[in-house]
Amino acid sequence: MSAGPKEFDLIARYFTRPAPPGFLGVGDDCALLPVAAGHQLATSVDLLIEGRHFFSDVDPKALGHKALAVNISDLAAMGAQPLACLLSLSLPDMNDAWLQAFSDGFYALADRAGCPLIGGDTTRSAAGIVINVTVMGQVRPEQALLRAAAKVGDDIWVTGTLGAADIALRLLQGRLPANERLLAATRPTLDWPEPPWTFAQTLAGVAHAALDISDGLSQDLGHILKASSCGAVLDYTALPLHPALQGLDALLVQEAALAGGDVYQLCFTAAQEQRAHIQALADQAKCVVTRIGGIVAEPGLHVLGQGGVPIKQHIAGFDHFS
Amino acid sequence: MSAGPKEFDLIARYFTRPAPPGFLGVGDDCALLPVAAGHQLATSVDLLIEGRHFFSDVDPKALGHKALAVNISDLAAMGAQPLACLLSLSLPDMNDAWLQAFSDGFYALADRAGCPLIGGDTTRSAAGIVINVTVMGQVRPEQALLRAAAKVGDDIWVTGTLGAADIALRLLQGRLPANERLLAATRPTLDWPEPPWTFAQTLAGVAHAALDISDGLSQDLGHILKASSCGAVLDYTALPLHPALQGLDALLVQEAALAGGDVYQLCFTAAQEQRAHIQALADQAKCVVTRIGGIVAEPGLHVLGQGGVPIKQHIAGFDHFS
Repeated sequence: MSAGPKEFDLIARYFTRPAPPGFLGVGDDCALLPVAAGHQLATSVDLLIEGRHFFSDVDPKALGHKALAVNISDLAAMGAQPLACLLSLSLPDMNDAWLQAFSDGFYALADRAGCPLIGGDTTRSAAGIVINVTVMGQVRPEQALLRAAAKVGDDIWVTGTLGAADIALRLLQGRLPANERLLAATRPTLDWPEPPWTFAQTLAGVAHAALDISDGLSQDLGHILKASSCGAVLDYTALPLHPALQGLDALLVQEAALAGGDVYQLCFTAAQEQRAHIQALADQAKCVVTRIGGIVAEPGLHVLGQGGVPIKQHIAGFDHFS
Repeated sequence: MSAGPKEFDLIARYFTRPAPPGFLGVGDDCALLPVAAGHQLATSVDLLIEGRHFFSDVDPKALGHKALAVNISDLAAMGAQPLACLLSLSLPDMNDAWLQAFSDGFYALADRAGCPLIGGDTTRSAAGIVINVTVMGQVRPEQALLRAAAKVGDDIWVTGTLGAADIALRLLQGRLPANERLLAATRPTLDWPEPPWTFAQTLAGVAHAALDISDGLSQDLGHILKASSCGAVLDYTALPLHPALQGLDALLVQEAALAGGDVYQLCFTAAQEQRAHIQALADQAKCVVTRIGGIVAEPGLHVLGQGGVPIKQHIAGFDHFS
């Protein structure tokens, strides 16, 4: 976190706000933060590169929000409480308007999620905009929502809705014919993901396995099944499709719902006895939850459509290194 | 830390080794690590960009070492014990030989420093090689070596030697005439920095202020003076110059020693009563330490040369955003 004079100016102007009591924030070799007794530190990191993970002309305020949101989504997927974050930022040049908007979007979410920015690194490089966010949270290790914790007989739940981010991405990439109305209805889900961090903390010790649907429901649920050595049956008709998908081609909707990534909502499993409790926790956190299937012993992911007819999937999740 | 199938292959092949007992490593939404009772988490992050922070043709094994070393140096500068690290890596293409060498260099230091790699993110981007390392360590908050903790009357110490990394950098950048012998003697210090993490932990609760000399002694010591609202008098003749600097132009040596960055050794202050104790701790850790001056009340950094004659400095530290 060492920095030259101009770098200090940049940090001071946009990325230095007082750290909470008990924390040491920006300005020393390391930041310091407390971890509560009985808890472990949960940590995750995401690297976002211009042109690869976001468009060059993206609204910088939305980008600041999303750079943190995708990481808070990882904490939520462990049932962890956000504690703090670090930001590394490389920019081709100084641009006050861009930095102001980016930091506004970043801090607005950091404040709401209780995840203060306590350190980072900035640099200038012609390589384009590079954003790396590290989040840290805390969770009681015996209550963490691990991918390997699904049990046969568990319900499978998802939070929020499915499909909108994928449709927005297809429209922006020209893979669907231009449709202003559809883009306006789906783009907020892509640009301003709102992971259910409050609800997720209440699932710690209640749910079994969990992850976020960043790579698409099929692929991500597949990780739970592999780690937990089990299978799943999904009821396609139960999936909480985003309302903007109504009236679209059925196969397109199916791909968007099952394979569309960038969702940053949770898929989790829990014992059937927990149904009422989970619904109550979700209501309390103002989080929409939907039961979409169950965990079975037989390996594989089986998706059943109308009348229990299996749906054949010709889909693959998003691969960051393809 | 979500990842597509090919990304999983990459992570599995080069960056997945078993996490220590009590840790959760690569493979879930977050990594989990324990922080000892009475300790806080110390964390820092460094972003390294090809062409900006390292040459494109750098030995990848040295790069893997250095990417972690510069972060462990930040932990050392707080007196913190390394706990774990996260690695974000963006590459223009897959290259097995490069990845093997990079991961070898990274893991070799991680193993020696007790700083296991427990998570990360990988992506492919034409933007060139981007490396972001987050380190986490633990320290008792009341013992952390803060920049603001220097006291009038303190000795000023440095570990290791000064100047070699700067000379190597000048040679590689063509700012000094080619000199194979000099490059061979100085480059190891630039490419394979060895921060004194073992010794640094023993300074926690013993020394007062500390930081690493990543931006050059003058500039970095200046941070301590500013944060601690005091001044310093340095004895230039006491500085532990790297032996390879013998016989070089006196002004060049002075610039390299006082303003040369990329050192990743510590500058710290401690009460005069601690002299013998600090020397004993250094001997035990096989770390070279040198007293180079003292903290005074009058603001400013005064460097005295032969016979106590003030040395005028026309120097500036390295600025990552200039």
